[in-house]
Amino acid sequence: MVIRPYGYAIWEAIQDYLNVKFKETGHSNMYFPQFIPYSFIEKEASHVEGFSPELALVTIGGGKELEEKLVVRPTSETIVNHMFTKWIQSYRDLPLMINQWANVTRWEMRTKPFIRTLEFLWQEGHTAHATLEEAEKEAMQMIDVYTKFAYEQAAIPVIPGRKSRVETFAGANRTYTIEAMMGDRKALQAGTSHNLGQNFSRAFGTQFMDENSQIEHVWQTSWAISTRFVGGIIMTHGDDAGLMLPPNIAPIQVVIVPIWKKGDEKSAVMEAVSSVQNTLKEAGIRVKVDDSELRTPGWKFNFYEMKGVPIRLEIGPRDVTNKSVVISRRDIPGKQGKEFGVSMDPSILVDHIKGRLVEIQASLLQKAIAFRDSNIVDVSSYGELKEAIAEGKWARGPWSASDADELKVKEETSATIRCFPFEQPEGAKKCFMTGNPAEEVAIFAKSY
Amino acid sequence: MVIRPYGYAIWEAIQDYLNVKFKETGHSNMYFPQFIPYSFIEKEASHVEGFSPELALVTIGGGKELEEKLVVRPTSETIVNHMFTKWIQSYRDLPLMINQWANVTRWEMRTKPFIRTLEFLWQEGHTAHATLEEAEKEAMQMIDVYTKFAYEQAAIPVIPGRKSRVETFAGANRTYTIEAMMGDRKALQAGTSHNLGQNFSRAFGTQFMDENSQIEHVWQTSWAISTRFVGGIIMTHGDDAGLMLPPNIAPIQVVIVPIWKKGDEKSAVMEAVSSVQNTLKEAGIRVKVDDSELRTPGWKFNFYEMKGVPIRLEIGPRDVTNKSVVISRRDIPGKQGKEFGVSMDPSILVDHIKGRLVEIQASLLQKAIAFRDSNIVDVSSYGELKEAIAEGKWARGPWSASDADELKVKEETSATIRCFPFEQPEGAKKCFMTGNPAEEVAIFAKSY
Repeated sequence: MVIRPYGYAIWEAIQDYLNVKFKETGHSNMYFPQFIPYSFIEKEASHVEGFSPELALVTIGGGKELEEKLVVRPTSETIVNHMFTKWIQSYRDLPLMINQWANVTRWEMRTKPFIRTLEFLWQEGHTAHATLEEAEKEAMQMIDVYTKFAYEQAAIPVIPGRKSRVETFAGANRTYTIEAMMGDRKALQAGTSHNLGQNFSRAFGTQFMDENSQIEHVWQTSWAISTRFVGGIIMTHGDDAGLMLPPNIAPIQVVIVPIWKKGDEKSAVMEAVSSVQNTLKEAGIRVKVDDSELRTPGWKFNFYEMKGVPIRLEIGPRDVTNKSVVISRRDIPGKQGKEFGVSMDPSILVDHIKGRLVEIQASLLQKAIAFRDSNIVDVSSYGELKEAIAEGKWARGPWSASDADELKVKEETSATIRCFPFEQPEGAKKCFMTGNPAEEVAIFAKSY
Repeated sequence: MVIRPYGYAIWEAIQDYLNVKFKETGHSNMYFPQFIPYSFIEKEASHVEGFSPELALVTIGGGKELEEKLVVRPTSETIVNHMFTKWIQSYRDLPLMINQWANVTRWEMRTKPFIRTLEFLWQEGHTAHATLEEAEKEAMQMIDVYTKFAYEQAAIPVIPGRKSRVETFAGANRTYTIEAMMGDRKALQAGTSHNLGQNFSRAFGTQFMDENSQIEHVWQTSWAISTRFVGGIIMTHGDDAGLMLPPNIAPIQVVIVPIWKKGDEKSAVMEAVSSVQNTLKEAGIRVKVDDSELRTPGWKFNFYEMKGVPIRLEIGPRDVTNKSVVISRRDIPGKQGKEFGVSMDPSILVDHIKGRLVEIQASLLQKAIAFRDSNIVDVSSYGELKEAIAEGKWARGPWSASDADELKVKEETSATIRCFPFEQPEGAKKCFMTGNPAEEVAIFAKSY
């Protein structure tokens, strides 16, 4: 997949936000090699089992057959642990908290732009701690960072929770996830955070001397969000006219379309356009003017709707005379979303636009929450689950059945456990599959 | 090579600066796949000849032998042109100006950290234009962006110029370069910008219809700076005590070392330290406090000297009483670089520190310029060149000899033409090798 500039700009917005949060929470960026000796991958048994079917292997380098095949990283736990083992000796070296922005490769046969691609971009955090409790706290902290990002920046009301054993990352003790409902009501796993326990530290001998001079294996986490999230944003908020981007991550928040008919109207209109553009730019608003004469205003209206730009400003000769602009909101189609005669005066216009951007951001999130909630069905029997899934909805119900039962549900309905959500209903529960007591409800859905 | 956090932070500083400049000059970031079908690489004859000895090849994917080998990108001209051919139809689609931040792989047998590594990080710009003149202007503009960056941010007085035909990029008509003199007086090619002419557009059929409805091949450029530049910074400014980082790109500009002996001194010192830290941080200075009790102040002094932090502040009990700090400059060793009794008052301290950072930045550049200029010898015979190179210096002299002569110099002295500098002496010149008239002087040096 080629990521073109507009899509890449959304990824940059994701990076800019998360990079700050990662640093605030004590992580440093660094970079590991992408070629991993095959023997590293084999060291953690469940890891190699999970990843070996989807590896790309370099077998020739500099014109020669290599003695050991190199894996193009599908994820970096193994090479990270290889280095952590060298760097960590004492409790003084802990916690070690790093992140890298990188490309990864997983050999996918059925690809879908942004959602499932052979190569994708992501960040992967890797941390090592002195205790299980610290590692668990870190894993939870990072899924929380992702959850806040999804709600506040991407306006995606993800459901955070814990993966079932069947769906846990190859090599992790626990996987936390944020699950998002797309416009077609399929679930998208939009980010994960793993408590790796001591699985990799045992496989790689990553040990430290604790304060009592005892040698222990470190406790670890890893966590990632990828360019898949860009696909999640597109498929959460889009409509038939195209994308609908949340202002906080929109590469263009406001597009200005100048309108003139006669030649002598142009200079006055363009002067006003340029002045409004500077006003908004100085106020920190991401604004673009499309003054191309190759396209009509009508063509531009459609184009920027398709691109999901939150706000469009039109400025024509009459607006110049009245010192006002026309505003259209992408999230409210047609006349309802239009405002006429909004003053061009910087002291009024900036606040007005900023206010509208905040409203649009909130309104996209509210719409997505309402959509999500109206498409989750509480079920108390397998029959009810089948019905809900057949209707394309998500099913939520008490679950304490076996891995085999979970696989049976998958086989019969194509739905999997997306997560045991952190937010759980109170009171005693009975597993809808077995009738046995259940501690938690699980959410089942078809997914990407 | 693993890039650890401190080195990576220097790379991030390079990215932050260049990213802004690239966008200001009209480029958008995007991302191309890193696996390139082998047949793409073969399309441009000199390109495949230049790169085929250093390719890494993926031959197995998802457990199966691939029908066509995939090249792990050594550079992206071929896949970029494959896509440009789809995107460009008309002069309205031009200029097309993009950049990507990515990893690249070149199978190197003799590696050196940052300078020559099997995998490295870089940015690669790729542009397509309607005319040769536009492409030439773009290639020159970007080498100029690199030159300014080197001087103003990295304090490296690079010499910009044109590569000889022998040293031109495989597939380019012209390669512009910035050449830096390292502390050991070897040359480092620190960035390049290529005028690709129509070489790739002819190989890939990248055509457009011009304003007169004629079909033409596009004119192209590409340009890159890599993590090698981090090595350049280290090897330009370091001394026996370690690194010496220019303030503009130093991850830590000021380190504060608290000093106390008795237990009851600690709280007053730490209160002052914390207040100074906040003052500097709010002023936009990158400041770090090292309050670890596991290390002595003396150990910390050495450590941050080694790390090349431009300014160290010491704050002890007497400083707290006097409401002052002790300042040490990394670029002036010993007592000369120390200032006592500088007021802690924010209104004084911030300006004082900012002033010192500007001075250090300028002083590192001046020192590097003096070093460079005292190590370039003007030569008027091959004997003089041999002598200069044998002394480890750079030789500059008029050159209009053949490619064969250039290769002979390389074989006999290990020196190559680093560039024909843009800045040329006036007046008639005679080639120091052949005695024939020469239009330009060339700079010869041993290089990394």
